[in-house]
Amino acid sequence: MRTRAVIPFKPDNPKTRLAPVMDPAERSTFARAMLDDVVEAVRRAGTDPLILATRPIDHPDAAVEVRDGGLNEVLNDLFGKSSGPVLVIMADLPLATGESVERICAATGDVVLVPGRGGGTNAILVRDPPRFRADFYGASFLDHLRIAEERGLEGTVVDSFLLSTDIDEPGDLVEVLIHGRGRSRSVLESSGFALSVAKGRVGIQRHPHEEAL
Amino acid sequence: MRTRAVIPFKPDNPKTRLAPVMDPAERSTFARAMLDDVVEAVRRAGTDPLILATRPIDHPDAAVEVRDGGLNEVLNDLFGKSSGPVLVIMADLPLATGESVERICAATGDVVLVPGRGGGTNAILVRDPPRFRADFYGASFLDHLRIAEERGLEGTVVDSFLLSTDIDEPGDLVEVLIHGRGRSRSVLESSGFALSVAKGRVGIQRHPHEEAL
Repeated sequence: MRTRAVIPFKPDNPKTRLAPVMDPAERSTFARAMLDDVVEAVRRAGTDPLILATRPIDHPDAAVEVRDGGLNEVLNDLFGKSSGPVLVIMADLPLATGESVERICAATGDVVLVPGRGGGTNAILVRDPPRFRADFYGASFLDHLRIAEERGLEGTVVDSFLLSTDIDEPGDLVEVLIHGRGRSRSVLESSGFALSVAKGRVGIQRHPHEEAL
Repeated sequence: MRTRAVIPFKPDNPKTRLAPVMDPAERSTFARAMLDDVVEAVRRAGTDPLILATRPIDHPDAAVEVRDGGLNEVLNDLFGKSSGPVLVIMADLPLATGESVERICAATGDVVLVPGRGGGTNAILVRDPPRFRADFYGASFLDHLRIAEERGLEGTVVDSFLLSTDIDEPGDLVEVLIHGRGRSRSVLESSGFALSVAKGRVGIQRHPHEEAL
């Protein structure tokens, strides 16, 4: 049975912590570009993308279902009704590649976790979803490992920098400009974002008047 | 020919950006614990550790050579005299594991890079060192890729969260407490550091009076 790759997505007022460097329309465009990069990565890995969106959106390369409710509530409802493997992967991972997602699918374990920085879970593959329970937010990586253990499920971990890199704050954009190969990077570059190196530290700068170049 | 794993190390006043949460003696102890974890990881991966230290230190499990000078100068001098593969790996990677270092050694390519966050290079394997030139600091990941290309060397990248996680600032200690399995984590825990979760964000807290517990 093919793996479904479930991508939760909130189209309205996304990525508020990027507000210091992007206006609302730019944040929406960038969030959509990151979603597109994730959809592309999971398709390359041979999984079937399903976007769980908080309101209707169109996507040419993924199924879309509208779900209202908290992330854990929505996912656990879906887990309860799923008979095949489900990969949950966050929509703000623009460095995701087919190869990195393939590593998740190829890993052993009943529950395969990909940590994000700061204790989060950026992706999780659940091979028998009704037996598991999602508990995102907070130190979810440790929570998910514990939930797996409590339920007699083997939890394993995939070690990926690309998938650990969720984009929340302006400083995170550096990673997209350095390592990105997809639409998210193109959107940043066409908006005038570029790397800056000062005193040995790498940051971002923006040239708004060069957008037309 | 066995790979030498070269670990640059500065024993004096290390990790100054941790000063807000550790006094100088604690920073020295923690820096040494991180070095020990890296030595353990490279040994498990079957490489021969060589610490390049700025003054004499003792280490039971690694060769030590004292080198004066800038990091790039010291490394390029060593590259020029090396006939076998050299892995340069930073001393502040306490999440390094034998498995993650093995992935570097198993990768194809003349020059194998492991990025750190913010554009750095956390590890680099050079299979024919006299043909390459180290250029650490700044956006060294992109610089190293460019140098490889200029010299007709194939540059490849290993995608590892554990090796991307260098510890510089207090917020980075969260990663050691969540993912660490070695001495660095033990040192932090015995110094009273613990995870704290508030408003869904994971941070660190410290209980100085519980050290004796």
